[in-house]
Amino acid sequence: MKPVSNVTVLQQLGWRYATKKFDPTHKIASEDWKTLEQALLLTPSSYGLQPWKFIIITDPAKRAELRPFTWNQPQVTDCSHFIVFTIRKNIDPGHVQRLIDRTSEVRQVPATSIEPYKQMMLSDVVHGPRSLHANEWAARQVYIALGNFMTCAAMLGVDTCPIEGFEPPRYDQVLGLAHKGLAAVVCCAAGYRADDDKYAPMSKVRFKAEDVVERI
Amino acid sequence: MKPVSNVTVLQQLGWRYATKKFDPTHKIASEDWKTLEQALLLTPSSYGLQPWKFIIITDPAKRAELRPFTWNQPQVTDCSHFIVFTIRKNIDPGHVQRLIDRTSEVRQVPATSIEPYKQMMLSDVVHGPRSLHANEWAARQVYIALGNFMTCAAMLGVDTCPIEGFEPPRYDQVLGLAHKGLAAVVCCAAGYRADDDKYAPMSKVRFKAEDVVERI
Repeated sequence: MKPVSNVTVLQQLGWRYATKKFDPTHKIASEDWKTLEQALLLTPSSYGLQPWKFIIITDPAKRAELRPFTWNQPQVTDCSHFIVFTIRKNIDPGHVQRLIDRTSEVRQVPATSIEPYKQMMLSDVVHGPRSLHANEWAARQVYIALGNFMTCAAMLGVDTCPIEGFEPPRYDQVLGLAHKGLAAVVCCAAGYRADDDKYAPMSKVRFKAEDVVERI
Repeated sequence: MKPVSNVTVLQQLGWRYATKKFDPTHKIASEDWKTLEQALLLTPSSYGLQPWKFIIITDPAKRAELRPFTWNQPQVTDCSHFIVFTIRKNIDPGHVQRLIDRTSEVRQVPATSIEPYKQMMLSDVVHGPRSLHANEWAARQVYIALGNFMTCAAMLGVDTCPIEGFEPPRYDQVLGLAHKGLAAVVCCAAGYRADDDKYAPMSKVRFKAEDVVERI
């Protein structure tokens, strides 16, 4: 017995679409939002480093302030919960140490026993090959969170719209991210579609399997 | 009535972990693999451009060939299905046109009616601001697919292990990707955990909500 059936998974992925018009009166219930926030936190990341912070904006004033820096897209102000996915810039030894400390705490093992793991992260992301593009590496991790979030939302019947069309430097300014070592990389609106979103009934467009899948 | 309950979503995200030891005798049933492949295809992408190709490798010889270029990780050869996520390099007007043609076909609208959409993609990803880092943009899209895939697999009770620890240039060579305009960016092993994977029972380590979530 599978936790979720094949039919349900495909049905919900088919149901989701990039919602252009949200119903501004329909808010995500607190219990459901808690689940989605928890789903975000559970996103897998390389080394488990979680190089991110999720800014959840429900304040209408702040959203009105961000909308002009988002190609004026109405989803910013009309959705229920608006998420700005940010990376932690320039992952440093302090961040790695925080993960080690947290691992030691959660798994109740001495930090010394996971020293090799720490050294592996330091010698890759902080001082090694990935350090040259640590921010881009972090941005990619954030997109795992975006993918996970949209899929979990679809499973719960919550609509989303991923948004790359925004001005990251303006967001960083409005949200005061820079001095916290954060940078906005992508956004996602979540809520419920308006009854009259003309995009909702359109067929989903995907290339044929033979054009995007190769089997070896 | 939600399609999937909150409890099931969180239970399955809690159940999943980066599987270190797969049961090599336990293959994903054909019907389930079809669902997962379909889930991959349904992944959302910016503009719907799907700048990717998914290489699904079940051939043991090819997997043995790739394993040394994957830090010798046993998941490469022991899992049921091994996926190499590749980007389509340097998205060009031809790719955009293929999406327009496909959209016209699927939605049964004349291509001329979606000309503004085409111009928008061209003036951003092909000739505009995103063209300067089109490959990195494509790589981020691929990570949405990775996130979506791992979450859908978890919903079906299928184990996965995302793999960034590999040598992309070697993969490109072994899989003959370069001359097809493709480049490997990340991998994912899928299948079922071995009964004795010592990582399976370990507690999942995540930072506390207050460290990765900010509410405004």
